[in-house]
Amino acid sequence: MAVEFAQDKQGHHFFLCARHAAELEQTGKELQGRFPRTAIHTKTCDVSDKSSIQEFATWINSLTDNIDILINNAGIYLPGSAYGEADGNLEKLMEVNTYSAYHLTRLLLPGMMAVNPSTGSPKKPGQARGHIFNICSIASLNAYPNGGAYRISKYAMYGFSKNLREEMKPHGIKVTHVLPGAVYTNSWSGSDIDPKRIMEAADVAKMVYTAAHLSPQACVEEIIMRPQLGDL
Amino acid sequence: MAVEFAQDKQGHHFFLCARHAAELEQTGKELQGRFPRTAIHTKTCDVSDKSSIQEFATWINSLTDNIDILINNAGIYLPGSAYGEADGNLEKLMEVNTYSAYHLTRLLLPGMMAVNPSTGSPKKPGQARGHIFNICSIASLNAYPNGGAYRISKYAMYGFSKNLREEMKPHGIKVTHVLPGAVYTNSWSGSDIDPKRIMEAADVAKMVYTAAHLSPQACVEEIIMRPQLGDL
Amino acid sequence: MAVEFAQDKQGHHFFLCARHAAELEQTGKELQGRFPRTAIHTKTCDVSDKSSIQEFATWINSLTDNIDILINNAGIYLPGSAYGEADGNLEKLMEVNTYSAYHLTRLLLPGMMAVNPSTGSPKKPGQARGHIFNICSIASLNAYPNGGAYRISKYAMYGFSKNLREEMKPHGIKVTHVLPGAVYTNSWSGSDIDPKRIMEAADVAKMVYTAAHLSPQACVEEIIMRPQLGDL
Amino acid sequence: MAVEFAQDKQGHHFFLCARHAAELEQTGKELQGRFPRTAIHTKTCDVSDKSSIQEFATWINSLTDNIDILINNAGIYLPGSAYGEADGNLEKLMEVNTYSAYHLTRLLLPGMMAVNPSTGSPKKPGQARGHIFNICSIASLNAYPNGGAYRISKYAMYGFSKNLREEMKPHGIKVTHVLPGAVYTNSWSGSDIDPKRIMEAADVAKMVYTAAHLSPQACVEEIIMRPQLGDL
Repeated sequence: MAVEFAQDKQGHHFFLCARHAAELEQTGKELQGRFPRTAIHTKTCDVSDKSSIQEFATWINSLTDNIDILINNAGIYLPGSAYGEADGNLEKLMEVNTYSAYHLTRLLLPGMMAVNPSTGSPKKPGQARGHIFNICSIASLNAYPNGGAYRISKYAMYGFSKNLREEMKPHGIKVTHVLPGAVYTNSWSGSDIDPKRIMEAADVAKMVYTAAHLSPQACVEEIIMRPQLGDL
Repeated sequence: MAVEFAQDKQGHHFFLCARHAAELEQTGKELQGRFPRTAIHTKTCDVSDKSSIQEFATWINSLTDNIDILINNAGIYLPGSAYGEADGNLEKLMEVNTYSAYHLTRLLLPGMMAVNPSTGSPKKPGQARGHIFNICSIASLNAYPNGGAYRISKYAMYGFSKNLREEMKPHGIKVTHVLPGAVYTNSWSGSDIDPKRIMEAADVAKMVYTAAHLSPQACVEEIIMRPQLGDL
Repeated sequence: MAVEFAQDKQGHHFFLCARHAAELEQTGKELQGRFPRTAIHTKTCDVSDKSSIQEFATWINSLTDNIDILINNAGIYLPGSAYGEADGNLEKLMEVNTYSAYHLTRLLLPGMMAVNPSTGSPKKPGQARGHIFNICSIASLNAYPNGGAYRISKYAMYGFSKNLREEMKPHGIKVTHVLPGAVYTNSWSGSDIDPKRIMEAADVAKMVYTAAHLSPQACVEEIIMRPQLGDL
Repeated sequence: MAVEFAQDKQGHHFFLCARHAAELEQTGKELQGRFPRTAIHTKTCDVSDKSSIQEFATWINSLTDNIDILINNAGIYLPGSAYGEADGNLEKLMEVNTYSAYHLTRLLLPGMMAVNPSTGSPKKPGQARGHIFNICSIASLNAYPNGGAYRISKYAMYGFSKNLREEMKPHGIKVTHVLPGAVYTNSWSGSDIDPKRIMEAADVAKMVYTAAHLSPQACVEEIIMRPQLGDL
């Protein structure tokens, strides 16, 4: 996602988090090297831990008072079904897939809603001042025999995003629900899946990037995208 | 809900729980008095507490191995919006409105799925053996400016129910999502709302009762009902 | 459907139509014989023909000014896909499955909306005075590789019913969308389908009957029902 | 829409139709002037007339056997409600808003499905060979008190698009449903609406353009977009 935005001629500031320091540092360096105009800021964060999210948000708020775009993209998958999965699956998945986005958004919203940084005066109703992308899933829409707690967390995430959209309407903050099917990520790299059978991460990023660059009065509410051949 | 079923000529066993002992005992006595053919069993349970749900389920499983109908109806409402509500709202609402149904269902399902109590032999695929009603809400479908954590929990509950339906298909257990709008309950009694403006609890109960008495091969998946004049 | 309502102790008037005179007469006689309290009125009508619907509506309006319940249930199925089906499929299916309900409803609504027949005075807003059931289909919700024009007509029917519900809210007329999966009807009788695999017509009728007998202030908006084992 | 695609460095061929010859010629000349690399082909067509659509399709098929992108965008609006609108509204709106897309798509699909023009050999399953955008509306999703026949036609259009997506999956043809709210077009130019209150046509065009330029294996199925301040 960052790659798509980093190609802009104007430099952006990126605030990235991940659980593992080494991996995060590596990603940060790589992005910084490829896109010297951008400023890459990284901080480890365990999004399943509310206090860790609090630290991450405090750190961002100390560095900027002008967040243009927030992309809630954290998520894990645990297989199972409501009757057969391990005890604790639901609580764990809700924490990582839904609570994390809810808490981080709540901590960053006051800054996004409060004042117009370029003028110093309070932002006016109807004035565009930020865009939140919530990466949900096609699991937010469809039920399956092996739905389990994973799908409950994705329905909840979608409910969060849909209500946030209504809540932010008069505050000039755009909210978009992105519901992708299977996307090729590192977690697929060991498998024998045909990469042509699933989408590229860049496909999602391109749609997000375009949705973030429309006229101030247009809000893309929902994007549903799947592999051309359908779900796996 | 119990009243509707208690009117059957054949006696049923009811297993009711509530948080407050006095209120629960009162309800139990009243039902037993009106419907002498039924057997009313009551037990206090704090559905926001996983161990309390475990005790309730163990108690039921000790009294019967043949649950016909499970109605997940626990729920509380807390007002708010994602950006303005009290910290902890989401966790509390998820526990009471969603986790409670998820955990109780998981604890009772093995008995419902396992054997046919009337024959002692394992139930066969396609053989009807139980019906689970999940009382969701129109808040599971629509987003509003004051949606807040309440609506997140109701989306999650609906996701739970929809996936459970798919999971239970081959096991002969029916699953129905009930999505009612405003229903007149005790919590409205102090207000000045016109009772003709909202539904009666009996309206929902009648639809549930009929859905529970169709042919074995028919499953009502979803019932959406609202006040005739629409949402408040 | 008529059988369910005909069992009421109070006699009802039924106005039935079908394309073929002999079949319709046979059904009328059978109902009249089983339910002597009811009054069965029949008239042939080709619902694909607008003028035939006009005649049917005029005939009803000449016999009563107090329609309690209107059930739009006409429908045919033609197989196909958007790229492969016969030319004319869409026009034909729209006429029978959607236009028929639209036109008949429009012709009967003025009487339902106008006056309270029991008092002779205009009905008041909020006063229940009729209930329209539109029999849609699960084909109104889901898309399939062989969807074709049939599914287009069912989406249109559902759109008609959903908008009619909003339009009739202040007029005290209830509107219910019924979306059943496979139901055992005569058209299945020659096939080798296991009747336990699909629903009975009485399953749908029972849900409709109950929905028609709730408190005046409750409106069942939607009922989705499928074979327990899912779609065929 | 054409403007967005016409900016590509590689020249495209455009086949445009409209009802009025003068307006169409004017638009064609303007585009040709601004984008000399493109080839603009125009032909008048009354999309409410099946034979006119047939002529338009025959003309296109005579000029190319390699359609990359088909955008079904014809539509008119007539106000009304199911009980109050003029007789004939439904038939007229269905013809212009839904039948036109259905018939044109059916006439162009054989060419899109048949052979790979760059190799002369039949296209293989899974091979991308075209993209159909169906411009539906938020009226395809929501019901309103003044829904009327317009919304029925938009539900039908959405049903067409959703089923077409399933039908085209194995044929490598992408299908996208675009559901925009209010967009500023000529029909608004006389009104006193604040142009900042509704979206620009370019907003929709940008999303369509990006969706048309993803990896072959990614299909954007649905895009919902509204004015930031919500529906009018």
